[in-house]
Amino acid sequence: MTTDALICLNSPYKFWQFSDRHADQIRSEFPNIRFRIVGEHRVACEIHDAEIYFGWAFDRDWLAGATRLAWAATPSAGVDHWPVPEIQAADVMLTRGYGYHGQPMTEHAIGLLIGFSRGLFDSARLQTRSTWWKDDLATSFFDLHGQTLTIVGCGSVGTHLAEVAQALGMHVIGVRRHPPQSDTAGIEWMPAHRTLDALARSRAVINLLPATVETREFFSETTFQACQPGTVFINLGRASTVDHNALLASLDNGTLAGAALDVQPHKPPPLDDPLRHHPRVVLTPKTAVLSHAYMDQAVAFFHDNLQRFLTGQPLNGSVTPKSRRAA
Amino acid sequence: MTTDALICLNSPYKFWQFSDRHADQIRSEFPNIRFRIVGEHRVACEIHDAEIYFGWAFDRDWLAGATRLAWAATPSAGVDHWPVPEIQAADVMLTRGYGYHGQPMTEHAIGLLIGFSRGLFDSARLQTRSTWWKDDLATSFFDLHGQTLTIVGCGSVGTHLAEVAQALGMHVIGVRRHPPQSDTAGIEWMPAHRTLDALARSRAVINLLPATVETREFFSETTFQACQPGTVFINLGRASTVDHNALLASLDNGTLAGAALDVQPHKPPPLDDPLRHHPRVVLTPKTAVLSHAYMDQAVAFFHDNLQRFLTGQPLNGSVTPKSRRAA
Repeated sequence: MTTDALICLNSPYKFWQFSDRHADQIRSEFPNIRFRIVGEHRVACEIHDAEIYFGWAFDRDWLAGATRLAWAATPSAGVDHWPVPEIQAADVMLTRGYGYHGQPMTEHAIGLLIGFSRGLFDSARLQTRSTWWKDDLATSFFDLHGQTLTIVGCGSVGTHLAEVAQALGMHVIGVRRHPPQSDTAGIEWMPAHRTLDALARSRAVINLLPATVETREFFSETTFQACQPGTVFINLGRASTVDHNALLASLDNGTLAGAALDVQPHKPPPLDDPLRHHPRVVLTPKTAVLSHAYMDQAVAFFHDNLQRFLTGQPLNGSVTPKSRRAA
Repeated sequence: MTTDALICLNSPYKFWQFSDRHADQIRSEFPNIRFRIVGEHRVACEIHDAEIYFGWAFDRDWLAGATRLAWAATPSAGVDHWPVPEIQAADVMLTRGYGYHGQPMTEHAIGLLIGFSRGLFDSARLQTRSTWWKDDLATSFFDLHGQTLTIVGCGSVGTHLAEVAQALGMHVIGVRRHPPQSDTAGIEWMPAHRTLDALARSRAVINLLPATVETREFFSETTFQACQPGTVFINLGRASTVDHNALLASLDNGTLAGAALDVQPHKPPPLDDPLRHHPRVVLTPKTAVLSHAYMDQAVAFFHDNLQRFLTGQPLNGSVTPKSRRAA
């Protein structure tokens, strides 16, 4: 019986679309696999024959009909919007992508960080109405060089980001559940339970935590209180990991000099959301991961895993029951 | 006769002030030099005995009374506001500072560049009024990774900047009058007469040119026309090197995606200056060089030169008649 793969990767944006070029390429590289490339409304009827599914999203209702399904793959780094327990209960392997989110997220994070540290967002606002706003910037800027950056949830993306921060002369602390034993990539590693110690030494904090039961409102009043006055906080992880009332309070009491949020509690945020109007909050509409190279790299990652699947090797990016995500 | 040095380094900003700490330090390191630290209004009367002058500015009227003066030093990188020909005609050595402007200017330039490439300035403006502005950013952003950056006037500052651009995955072309023979720091060097070739290959251009007779309106209509559509242009050099009407036209015809100007033709710019109000122009009020480490490093540079002066060695940062600056 022919291996059957169902691909559902539509997007309004070209760089997130599985294009005809990607289809031609994958078919020529895997001539013995039958690939069907469909829109989301077709998945429910087409998934019946599929052993492999590669898509942005997965509806839990699809599982009942997916009797042959052995492996479901997403290009995303996070799978918090996927029905992970149900997929695992159905004995379907689940993989997420990694290795290609670091480049755009690094550019985004560094831009946001410098936007605050050198007063660039303030400057862009003041230029239309202030006679000469040099004093505003001279009394609030800080040098990144010599400062410490803590990256919370420092995995593949954080390690990439650390390289650029180091090139800017920053010291980087990487916080993760299970830090590596060795002194990888010049990062000072700390386990999660020492996060407050790391924050107390840092001038900038970048949050890359995934949405899990354990990370819910990890950035609470207590967490922010541990920060140095004048800290810049950037969230490129998930909104559920931050208590946004505590965040606003920390901006107003001077603990935070600025906050940039690529994810917000409501999408889109209501027009009167205080996060939209705080003068020291910059919101980006979940664009940290935008990259024109995205789908090419996601497809290359999938190709590699497909080869592994066909030859019975362990898949990259496996989501194990241990790291089960919260709804 | 005791060596006599006059220091005039006042500033409204602490990081640009020669402080009591700096005075104590220099006096203990050079106990045989008589240092006088004065405000600008005292220089005219105090310069008579000075062999050495270290200051932000120099009034050409001071020269007549400065009969013992052998060396005038400034912490600045540029000396276009100094009466260079008169100082040289009076047979006074003139030195500028270098090596410590690169760090803040690199942070500033990278922040401005990413502010445009990832639509961060647009996002900060749209967040207060657009329901969901993801399409705006998704249709205009570009990845820095893999793109080419041209640095025009690529000296000590540009070489520092190139390192960070390279860490972001950019290819860097360095344009200078006399490019180094060797492949320094991974930079692709080009002589000034090949600037248009460099621009045609670049997505971002950072201008670090000093103000000289030769660099006047170097960035003209012709220069901008050589750029790729969608180029980001950043000027951290001098305003006189740019034709700002041509700049505005290039923004409106799509050649330039955005422009950031740390220097403007008028300081401050008139409130109705179109540069202030163009939606794709970001102005910073000559803050690229702000650094809390500035004076410490400028004093260290001066200490080193003072040692050289006392022992008859050639001074660092000598401004030779060949590189005479325009008024």
